[in-house]
Amino acid sequence: MPGEFELIARHFTRPVRRAAIESSPGTQRVALGVGDDCALLNVTPGMQLAVSCDMLVEGRHFLSTVAPERLGHKALAVNLSDLAACGAEPLAFTLALALPRADDAFLAPFAQGLYALADAHGIELVGGDTTAGPLNICITVFGQVPAGQALLRSGARPGDELWVSGTLGDARLALEAFRGRVVLPGEAFETVREAMERPQPRVALGRALRGLATSAIDLSDGLLGDLGHVLRRSGVGATVNVDALPRGAVLATMPQPLQHECLLAGGDDYELLFSAPAQAHAAVQAAGVAAGVAVHCCGQLDAQRGLRVVDGDGRPVATPWHAFDHFL
Amino acid sequence: MPGEFELIARHFTRPVRRAAIESSPGTQRVALGVGDDCALLNVTPGMQLAVSCDMLVEGRHFLSTVAPERLGHKALAVNLSDLAACGAEPLAFTLALALPRADDAFLAPFAQGLYALADAHGIELVGGDTTAGPLNICITVFGQVPAGQALLRSGARPGDELWVSGTLGDARLALEAFRGRVVLPGEAFETVREAMERPQPRVALGRALRGLATSAIDLSDGLLGDLGHVLRRSGVGATVNVDALPRGAVLATMPQPLQHECLLAGGDDYELLFSAPAQAHAAVQAAGVAAGVAVHCCGQLDAQRGLRVVDGDGRPVATPWHAFDHFL
Repeated sequence: MPGEFELIARHFTRPVRRAAIESSPGTQRVALGVGDDCALLNVTPGMQLAVSCDMLVEGRHFLSTVAPERLGHKALAVNLSDLAACGAEPLAFTLALALPRADDAFLAPFAQGLYALADAHGIELVGGDTTAGPLNICITVFGQVPAGQALLRSGARPGDELWVSGTLGDARLALEAFRGRVVLPGEAFETVREAMERPQPRVALGRALRGLATSAIDLSDGLLGDLGHVLRRSGVGATVNVDALPRGAVLATMPQPLQHECLLAGGDDYELLFSAPAQAHAAVQAAGVAAGVAVHCCGQLDAQRGLRVVDGDGRPVATPWHAFDHFL
Repeated sequence: MPGEFELIARHFTRPVRRAAIESSPGTQRVALGVGDDCALLNVTPGMQLAVSCDMLVEGRHFLSTVAPERLGHKALAVNLSDLAACGAEPLAFTLALALPRADDAFLAPFAQGLYALADAHGIELVGGDTTAGPLNICITVFGQVPAGQALLRSGARPGDELWVSGTLGDARLALEAFRGRVVLPGEAFETVREAMERPQPRVALGRALRGLATSAIDLSDGLLGDLGHVLRRSGVGATVNVDALPRGAVLATMPQPLQHECLLAGGDDYELLFSAPAQAHAAVQAAGVAAGVAVHCCGQLDAQRGLRVVDGDGRPVATPWHAFDHFL
């Protein structure tokens, strides 16, 4: 069986793009990558470093049925989604991996999925750790954002419009299909399964929203729960129009209560939820176009505290679910 | 049972030292701490960011018998040790934690041990993740070092002296006592157990060695294995005098073969192994004094490739062990 160092070398060391630290400090983002006690990064002057960290555990964040290539993608995607929510430009990431055994059949496609997404965002694996243990994937991601321009949860103001990117609810619908609660035809199942297993972090949109959005968060625990964080941080309330929430063609055919549950309390969406002044409406739409992702105005922020969900006619909608909690 | 957010809030959110990002960007190291999608850090202009990441798994990196306070200490200490080996000044860290259950009796002392060491180094927890799952602790640590001045594994040169800090082998001796291979009187056991469970990262020494040491690495997998990384990276060989390796009073009473095994292949030492030109001998000793830790010259680097272990009379010493590997 290959040992730890051999394993790291085989799957996670890429010889390209390593720069000698002595040669030209300050000119490359990654001055020193994998293989020393620390990696060394250059943060552009005037930029702040943005850092986020997510740990993925089997049965909690992914199912044992997920293809390793998709798992590699998703583990990095959920971290990039946090950078997106701050409007940060991704720089690099570290990976710590606990594996029951050193398994090439898992690691090769896992690394492939991971690197494909890393390459799509022009970032590099700069360090990490590999150990034996119950399967656990921990990624810490680094980005940079002009000082003072990061999108925060705390900036929403009464009167702002509430926006969401992409479509919501498909990942939760896939989970319910895996659980046997709903039965989906093969193609429909593959569509929602891909939403669950291959989320697309909205990095370009986050950057395009700098200076436009007053607050932002990425949707990982369900819209109601994540919006709750924004409302608490910003000291405002909100009214959400459930009929204005964007949903895919498969979810749109489901019974209304299930649609509402998937849209409002789904989790694993990795879309951006953000607020912007009403006068920025056209600029926000243009930002979506520029970033290549649809954005939908789905409500507004209120001076009155609390979270109100209504339908297109303004009638209250019941919301009998709790936000997803990894200990519940 | 408390939920994920409550758990994080109770044990890992400290209200002090949070700075509004808008107020004075660039003036504080941590512009935004726990509680948003990302933390925001200010890296001093002219400095490079140093990043390291370690994952700790029960049975591999710690025993189930460890007190949670000591585990909190050690989880951060092994990461700070990587910064020390680069000569970096610690800035902040993230913590991802998988726990079988939300357990205050574990988390309160764990956080206490963690924060005590963080406070000793003036650094802050800036983000992380908590989830249910088999116990797993993943910390990523951030430091900064003047551009081009980081201590690397690759700079050792033939003729350099080889140095080590502190004492070696006690952590391995404690492990052998836990395994029942050796029996130690109570006080002696507590002494070596503390070495295993409360390692002291040599951060001050690492910084003092900038501009003096030609290479450095922290000793986590045993001297022979870790020195091997330096030799490969630097393209040199080495001769180590086992009689010159510093050891504590307990280990010094053990049979010589066990002493050699603990000193040369022990692991979990978290001391610094470094090289420096012979003419810097007095300056290295002064750096040790300034940093408050003993440093010992224990060998030299050779143009001839390979790793030779000898005793004080220059006679070859047998080394029948392998470097510690987390998959072996």
